[in-house]
Amino acid sequence: MEMPVPNADVIARKAQIVAALSKVMPSGAVISDVSETRAYECDALTAYRCAPLAVVLPRSTEEVSAVMKICHDMGVPVVPRGSGTSLAGGALPTADCVLLGVARMNEVIETDYENRFIRVQTGRTNLSVTGAVEQEDFFYAPDPSSQLACAIAGNIAMNSGGAHCLKYGVTTNNLLGVTIVLMDGTVTEIGGAHLDSGGLDLLGLICGSEGQLGVVTEATLRILRKPEGARPVLMGFDSNEVAGACVSDIIKAGVLPVAIEFMDRPCIEACEAFAHAGYPMCEALLIVEVEGSPAEIDEQLSVILDIARRHNPVELREAKDADEAGRIWLGRKSAFGAMGQINDYMCLDGTIPVTSLPYVLKRIGELSKQYGLGVANVFHAGDGNMHPLILFDANKPGDLELCEDMGADILRLCVEVGGCLTGEHGVGIEKRDLMVDQFAPDDLEAQMAVKDVFDPKWLLNPAKVFPLAASESRRNFALAAE
Amino acid sequence: MEMPVPNADVIARKAQIVAALSKVMPSGAVISDVSETRAYECDALTAYRCAPLAVVLPRSTEEVSAVMKICHDMGVPVVPRGSGTSLAGGALPTADCVLLGVARMNEVIETDYENRFIRVQTGRTNLSVTGAVEQEDFFYAPDPSSQLACAIAGNIAMNSGGAHCLKYGVTTNNLLGVTIVLMDGTVTEIGGAHLDSGGLDLLGLICGSEGQLGVVTEATLRILRKPEGARPVLMGFDSNEVAGACVSDIIKAGVLPVAIEFMDRPCIEACEAFAHAGYPMCEALLIVEVEGSPAEIDEQLSVILDIARRHNPVELREAKDADEAGRIWLGRKSAFGAMGQINDYMCLDGTIPVTSLPYVLKRIGELSKQYGLGVANVFHAGDGNMHPLILFDANKPGDLELCEDMGADILRLCVEVGGCLTGEHGVGIEKRDLMVDQFAPDDLEAQMAVKDVFDPKWLLNPAKVFPLAASESRRNFALAAE
Repeated sequence: MEMPVPNADVIARKAQIVAALSKVMPSGAVISDVSETRAYECDALTAYRCAPLAVVLPRSTEEVSAVMKICHDMGVPVVPRGSGTSLAGGALPTADCVLLGVARMNEVIETDYENRFIRVQTGRTNLSVTGAVEQEDFFYAPDPSSQLACAIAGNIAMNSGGAHCLKYGVTTNNLLGVTIVLMDGTVTEIGGAHLDSGGLDLLGLICGSEGQLGVVTEATLRILRKPEGARPVLMGFDSNEVAGACVSDIIKAGVLPVAIEFMDRPCIEACEAFAHAGYPMCEALLIVEVEGSPAEIDEQLSVILDIARRHNPVELREAKDADEAGRIWLGRKSAFGAMGQINDYMCLDGTIPVTSLPYVLKRIGELSKQYGLGVANVFHAGDGNMHPLILFDANKPGDLELCEDMGADILRLCVEVGGCLTGEHGVGIEKRDLMVDQFAPDDLEAQMAVKDVFDPKWLLNPAKVFPLAASESRRNFALAAE
Repeated sequence: MEMPVPNADVIARKAQIVAALSKVMPSGAVISDVSETRAYECDALTAYRCAPLAVVLPRSTEEVSAVMKICHDMGVPVVPRGSGTSLAGGALPTADCVLLGVARMNEVIETDYENRFIRVQTGRTNLSVTGAVEQEDFFYAPDPSSQLACAIAGNIAMNSGGAHCLKYGVTTNNLLGVTIVLMDGTVTEIGGAHLDSGGLDLLGLICGSEGQLGVVTEATLRILRKPEGARPVLMGFDSNEVAGACVSDIIKAGVLPVAIEFMDRPCIEACEAFAHAGYPMCEALLIVEVEGSPAEIDEQLSVILDIARRHNPVELREAKDADEAGRIWLGRKSAFGAMGQINDYMCLDGTIPVTSLPYVLKRIGELSKQYGLGVANVFHAGDGNMHPLILFDANKPGDLELCEDMGADILRLCVEVGGCLTGEHGVGIEKRDLMVDQFAPDDLEAQMAVKDVFDPKWLLNPAKVFPLAASESRRNFALAAE
């Protein structure tokens, strides 16, 4: 790929910006060399790449504030980045932006077991939050698949979930307060260490706002006591419809498993070939896990197994020990890796009403035939969050575009049945132009008016979340008003 | 009290407004006669009274929209009202407003047990939501003390809780979607029937916004399966500190009771004299309730009773049957009535970190001596929501003002220890001028800028929530800009 050659004006402006940033940041915290900024050119949506103008790596809220103030005053766009694990391009730079990475901000600020919270800098990774409290038998509940790498900053931006969010909720249900730096450098506290903050629910507004409203530098998170134990059951069914009906019946019975995971035949086959987990070859597999004391587990499982038996399962296997529990989860946890060995794939993320599952799977099957691309379905079935994996050949011209079109059709299908475009990955750049399928112009206008309040110049994380034409016209309007 | 005599201009304007409203509303739905509008002059904060210019009682979202459009175009303030049970003056009219009461909008629109939601018009009372689903063994969790009378509209406006919100969360955790009418008459849907709506979390923003952003006419609410059973334990301690430490230890142990209620000695004495519940005379009483199957209840209570015994309780009584459970709750549930028989009182509502309880109770005791006014404390201890009742004599000149000053000091104390001005009653007019004790000018400015987006003319529920001077200057600015 040939590098575009910047002209003299661009070079001079870059030098000005880097000089201003270097004045307020310690040495080594501003990166402007093109060979080094290249490391930040994409996140986990690697199909899109663009190196930023410069990268800053602050260690404190004060440094973030100083950077934001400079960028605000000089009219430079800022793209915030946690660990760069976004599957939706949420941290994709623009060529004229300062990429603000919070990865060096990973301190634990305060731990309070009596009031059950931890306060961390948001560059800290998800799993290491649990790591900081597990010696006291506590844990932080949201558990995205990328939890080893992903940062709390990104979890808050995307309102991330995970396999266990059926019981514990997603990030917004486990977030008590934040320190946020606004685009002009103002540092503000929202929420606190306890339930019920006063005033408008700006904390809820911030959570899931994908870096459009400010940069969250510190977060107070709810921590929970670890359950005494957990036990999964593996259930095989001979159709997606029956497995879907079984999920509905479990939910309706008022039992609350900690996870209900769903895999269809293409996914089962790939996982079994990869992990040799001993899965039965059938049309649909469920892994249902409950937790608590042994008595609670027995009680909940007896209800769940009764329901499952009424749906004529081809397999019903309760884990008898930790070893068998591990094997039941092994296949599911390696699903993405397993698929990646067989095929290139695009991982979608949409939500649907639980009861629409059989219909949606049927329609996805039809779309698969229509487009001539295979689909494997992995699904947080308890809370309606689907992850269809569309299989394609990255080396075949036109296949990626076909795959993107099919992905858009599947996400429109999610909206059509009453669900939405994203469960936990966010809109980012991936789905920005599908927003018009979910929202009427008035709805989008209201969302953009709220962004106007926090970021009147439209400098923060540009060209994402909102349809590109709408956000560009908004930004041009802001520029013209100056 | 002498009635102010309106001048000719005011009379003419009122006639114009009433005529415009009567054109779009059916007969009997617009009330303008002074003797009838008087019925709407106050809510449950009866110390403040002001009859509205007119009252409208719509039956549908379309009618609400028509009323809002007229008021918007004519520049008439609108005060929304559910059942008028606000203890913070959230539904207090202004003399120039149209009071928009949703009490006639009480239909159930849809019930879906498989996806566990109900959709209702928001004039429906809280308890009758459960009434609509209990034949299928479901219930709606938030349970404010006023649940027999209070409307879902008011619950959403104030983000109401209740004794059981320790386990089930408050309104915002049980609200899935709304239909909202904006000030200009626009009808918008926010959220839906399922988790994860796309875009900014405007649903969270609406919930608890005290009628400042729009009028919610329909709501989709999460319904839950009724637990198999529940059992309370009564615990007496010889100091507030020890009872507070016991609450902390229970929470820290990771058990999640459905309720932890706290009463101090003045409250115990009043309740016992009124209800003869057989409470021990001690310094502090806790009622801790757990629910689930008999096995789950036994298991949870064994952990809780072990913790309680370590704190040397003067009484530890586990309900053996439904009759004894009823008696344990009887005193607590009659607390407000019991206090009302003995004294005039003002009921406060603030939240604090659970661990600050002993300190806060000590400081309240000192303030009580300083002001010479008694205080009884009733407290949702599990989630830190306090309801101190300040006792005063309404017939003694100056006593109410003294009581208000002391109330303000107690709420400032809540903020000082890291809590907030309101747990579930809202700010309303009662606490608007205390907002500056909780929020810095920038924080208030951000909240008011969000209101600008939804209600640029500042016509909705005027003179509430924000400090009076700030909201009046905002409104005057909006008027001048026209």
